[in-house]
Amino acid sequence: MTDMPVLDLNADLGEGFGRWRLTDDEALLECVTSANVACGFHGGDPSTMRRVCELAAERGIGIGAQVSYRDLAGFGRRAMEVPPDELADEVTYQIGALEVFARAAGARVTYVKPHGALYNRCVHDEEQAAAVVEGVRRAGGGLPVLGLPGSRLHQAARRAGLPVVQEAFADRAYTAGGTLVPRREPGAVLTDPEAVVRRCLQLAHDRSVTAIGGERITMHARSLCLHGDTPGAAALARRVRDELAASGVRLAAFA
Amino acid sequence: MTDMPVLDLNADLGEGFGRWRLTDDEALLECVTSANVACGFHGGDPSTMRRVCELAAERGIGIGAQVSYRDLAGFGRRAMEVPPDELADEVTYQIGALEVFARAAGARVTYVKPHGALYNRCVHDEEQAAAVVEGVRRAGGGLPVLGLPGSRLHQAARRAGLPVVQEAFADRAYTAGGTLVPRREPGAVLTDPEAVVRRCLQLAHDRSVTAIGGERITMHARSLCLHGDTPGAAALARRVRDELAASGVRLAAFA
Amino acid sequence: MTDMPVLDLNADLGEGFGRWRLTDDEALLECVTSANVACGFHGGDPSTMRRVCELAAERGIGIGAQVSYRDLAGFGRRAMEVPPDELADEVTYQIGALEVFARAAGARVTYVKPHGALYNRCVHDEEQAAAVVEGVRRAGGGLPVLGLPGSRLHQAARRAGLPVVQEAFADRAYTAGGTLVPRREPGAVLTDPEAVVRRCLQLAHDRSVTAIGGERITMHARSLCLHGDTPGAAALARRVRDELAASGVRLAAFA
Amino acid sequence: MTDMPVLDLNADLGEGFGRWRLTDDEALLECVTSANVACGFHGGDPSTMRRVCELAAERGIGIGAQVSYRDLAGFGRRAMEVPPDELADEVTYQIGALEVFARAAGARVTYVKPHGALYNRCVHDEEQAAAVVEGVRRAGGGLPVLGLPGSRLHQAARRAGLPVVQEAFADRAYTAGGTLVPRREPGAVLTDPEAVVRRCLQLAHDRSVTAIGGERITMHARSLCLHGDTPGAAALARRVRDELAASGVRLAAFA
Repeated sequence: MTDMPVLDLNADLGEGFGRWRLTDDEALLECVTSANVACGFHGGDPSTMRRVCELAAERGIGIGAQVSYRDLAGFGRRAMEVPPDELADEVTYQIGALEVFARAAGARVTYVKPHGALYNRCVHDEEQAAAVVEGVRRAGGGLPVLGLPGSRLHQAARRAGLPVVQEAFADRAYTAGGTLVPRREPGAVLTDPEAVVRRCLQLAHDRSVTAIGGERITMHARSLCLHGDTPGAAALARRVRDELAASGVRLAAFA
Repeated sequence: MTDMPVLDLNADLGEGFGRWRLTDDEALLECVTSANVACGFHGGDPSTMRRVCELAAERGIGIGAQVSYRDLAGFGRRAMEVPPDELADEVTYQIGALEVFARAAGARVTYVKPHGALYNRCVHDEEQAAAVVEGVRRAGGGLPVLGLPGSRLHQAARRAGLPVVQEAFADRAYTAGGTLVPRREPGAVLTDPEAVVRRCLQLAHDRSVTAIGGERITMHARSLCLHGDTPGAAALARRVRDELAASGVRLAAFA
Repeated sequence: MTDMPVLDLNADLGEGFGRWRLTDDEALLECVTSANVACGFHGGDPSTMRRVCELAAERGIGIGAQVSYRDLAGFGRRAMEVPPDELADEVTYQIGALEVFARAAGARVTYVKPHGALYNRCVHDEEQAAAVVEGVRRAGGGLPVLGLPGSRLHQAARRAGLPVVQEAFADRAYTAGGTLVPRREPGAVLTDPEAVVRRCLQLAHDRSVTAIGGERITMHARSLCLHGDTPGAAALARRVRDELAASGVRLAAFA
Repeated sequence: MTDMPVLDLNADLGEGFGRWRLTDDEALLECVTSANVACGFHGGDPSTMRRVCELAAERGIGIGAQVSYRDLAGFGRRAMEVPPDELADEVTYQIGALEVFARAAGARVTYVKPHGALYNRCVHDEEQAAAVVEGVRRAGGGLPVLGLPGSRLHQAARRAGLPVVQEAFADRAYTAGGTLVPRREPGAVLTDPEAVVRRCLQLAHDRSVTAIGGERITMHARSLCLHGDTPGAAALARRVRDELAASGVRLAAFA
C-alpha cells in the first residue's frame, strides 16, 4: 500500500473568452485532479472563471492560477519583453482575480502555473522566472509553482522559499537530456493515444520517460500535464485517467 | 467633543493605464481618507494598483475597489447593457484583483464604489444595481457599498445585507429634490473653489447642501467625494481638507 | 427571364479572434454571395480578415464591413452608450481596417452592416443610427448600408444620400407588424431547417414572409441573412443556396 | 538656391487613448512637417486619429502610420515574438485604419514608421523587419519606410522595392559607429536644449553628428525625429524649427 504511486493530472481549463469556447471544461473536470484556470490575460472571462472554480470545488479538484502575458490576440503564445516589476504585478493581479472566485466557491487557489510563452520563457530566462516568482510571492500564501524540473522558474521559486511541483507532459517528446523537443521539430508531439497512455503508465510506475531517441530518462514528476485544447482531448484525458487508476495509481492533487 | 463631526474624503485614484497618467496619486493621498482605486477595467494597471495600495496602507487610508464596465477606450463612461450575471462576475473579478495588492501592502479592501457610467446607471437601474451588489456579495467579506443616498445601489445593498455608506459631492450641483444636476446642464459642476469649500463646510456642520435653486436640503453624508482627475484637483483637495480640519471636523475613513 | 428573382445571401464571417474560431468561413464562403467580415471590434483579427477577403475575392463574393461596438469580451452584443462622434469614428476606423485587406486581395469593401447590439440599436435609436451613417460617410465611397427595412439606420442612410439594401432573416420569426420577434420570446428563432428553407423560398418567389401568428407580410428584401455561428450553419446555408438555385432564383451580390 | 538644405521634422502624435492624453498634438503640428500618427495598437483612438489627420491635412503636414505591436498596456514598448505573417497583417491593419481618416481629411498616408519596441527590433531583427515591410507592401501604394540608416528595416524595404527615408534623432546620443547609444546608458538622451539645437543645425548644414565620444560621423538624414511625449517637447520643437529656418534650412515633408 505504501508503494502505491500517486500522480496528479493537470490540464488548462477555462481558456475561452466571452463568446468563444476552447476547452471542454465540464468533461476535463471529470478527469483531472488539478485545473489550471485561465485568469483573463490570454483567455478566461470572469464568468468562466467562476464556473470553473465552482465545478472544481464541487469535485475537490485543485485550482491553479494559469498566469500569462497580457495578450488576448496571441493567446499568450507570443513571448514579451515585460519589465520584471511590471511582470510580477501582472502575475499578482491574475492570482488575485482567480482567488476571489475560488473563495466564492468555497475553495482556494492552491498553485500557480505560467501559460504558453511565459511558461516556455521561464524555463531558461532567469529574469522573467524571478519576476513570475516575485509575483507569486507578492500574492502571499506561499503558493507552490508548477513547472518543469530544472527550470529557471523552479530555481527562482526555491530561492524565494516557495514550494515547487514538478510536472511531465503526457504528449510531448523529450530529448535524451530530459528537455522537451521543440514544437517545430518533427515528432515533438505524441499524437498516438497508445503512446500517450504508455508514457503516462511508465511515468507513474517506472518514474521515467522514453526519449525521442529511445533512451530511458529518470523523471520524478508529481503531476502529469494533459492538453485540453485539442479535439479529442477530453476523451484521451478520460482514458489516461482510467488506465492509470486501473494500474494501481492513486490520482490526487498535490496541494 | 462627542459632537465633533466626522467626515471621510474619497477620491478616484490610480486612473492611469500603463504609460498614461491621469490622477496625481501621491498628492491626493496626502488629502483623502479613502482611495477609490481603479481596478483595470476603465483604468488602473497592476503596477499602479500596487503602488497606490502601498501608499494608502502606509498612511492608513481606506482602500476601495472602484469597479467599472470593461471599457478602457471609453474610460468606463459609456453605459453598457451587460447581462446581470456577467456584470456581477466582472465586479467580483475587479475586487479580487485589488484585494491581492491591498493584502500585499498589509491592508485590505474596505469598500466598493462603482465608477463612471456604472455609478450613474446604478442610481436608477434596479437590475444593474442588483448585479453590482451580487458581485460584491460573491467577493465575500460583506464589503460596504459607497454611493448616493436613495440610489438603487443602496437599496439593493441593504436587501443583500451589505452595509451602505452615503456620499455627497463636493463639486456637483444638487436639485431641490436632492439629486445631482445632470452634467450637461449649466451650473452642474461647481468650478469656484470658494463654493466647493463652502459646500463642504456646510455638509460637515449643518448636514445640508444648498440646491441650485437656493433651497436647503438635509444631507447626512458620511463621505465627501472630491474629483481627482481635473487640473488643480490636488490643490483643491488639500484646501478642503485643511478648512474642514480647521473648522473642527475630524477626517476619518468610514470602514 | 426578366422575372427571374435575384437574391443575395449574406452571413457573418471571420468572427473568431486569434486562437478562437467561431464561424466555418471556408464552408460559408461556398454558399453566400456577401460576406459580413468582422473588423476587430467584436471579433476578427487582422490575419483572419486578410484570409476571408482573399477567399471572398477569389469567389467574387461581396465584402462588407461588419462594424461593431468595441467589445471583444461581450462579442459586441452589449449595447453601449457611445457618444455619436466617437461612434462614427469607430465605424470609420473599422471600415478602413477592412478596406486595406479587401484591396490587397484585389477587391473592395462594397457595403457596411452593423453587428449585434449595434445592429439592434440602430433599428430604433435615431442618434446612434445617424452616428453609424456618419461613420460610413466619413469613410467615403458612398457605401451601401445593409439593414432592416424601416429601420432608423436606413432612414439616416437615405438622408445622408447613401444607398440602402434591405435584408430579411432566414431564421428569425416576424411579428404581424413586420418586425423581428425579440430573441427572448418563444419561437423567436426558426430551428427547423424545413421552415428556414420554406421561408427563403417564399421570400424569393412571393416577396413575403409568414408572421409568427400566420399573417402574410409583404417583404421586398434584396438580401437574405443566414446565421453562420451556430452548429450546422454551413450545412443549412448550403441547403438554402441549393434550393433557391433549383427553384430558379439567381443568387448574386447586390453591390 | 540649389544648395539650400532641406529637412523634414517628424514627431509622434496622437499617442493618447480615450480619456488619456500624452502628446500636445496641436502645438506639435505647428512645428513638424511629418506626423507619425498612432494607429490604435499602442495608443491612438479613432477620434484622435481623425482629428490629427484633419489638422495635419489643413497644414499640409505629411501623415505617417506609426505602426506598433498590439500592446496598449505597455505602450508598444515591450518587444513581442509575433509570428511574421501575423505581424505583417497587424501592420497592414493599422495602415488601413489610418488611411481612411487621412482620406476623409482630403489627404493620404505618405509613409510608415514603426513605433517603440517594434522600431528597435527592426533595427537588428531580419525576420520582424521583413514582416513589417511585408505588411507595408500588402497595404499597397508603395509607401516609404522611415527609419534608421543601415537598419534591417531599410534593407528589407529596399529588397521589396519600397522607398526608404533615413532619419536622425535630435536628442539621442550616437556611438562612434553611428548607432544609437542604448537608452539605459548614461548620456543616451540629450537633455540640454542647446545641445539638441546644435545637433539639428549640424545635421542640416554639415550632414553629420558628433558622437558621444566626440567623433564626427557623417549622416545623411532626410528627416529629423523630435520627441513629442516629454514635458517641454512642443517648446523645444518650436525652437528647433525656428533655428533651422533662420539658418537657411528649408523644412519640408519628404513625400
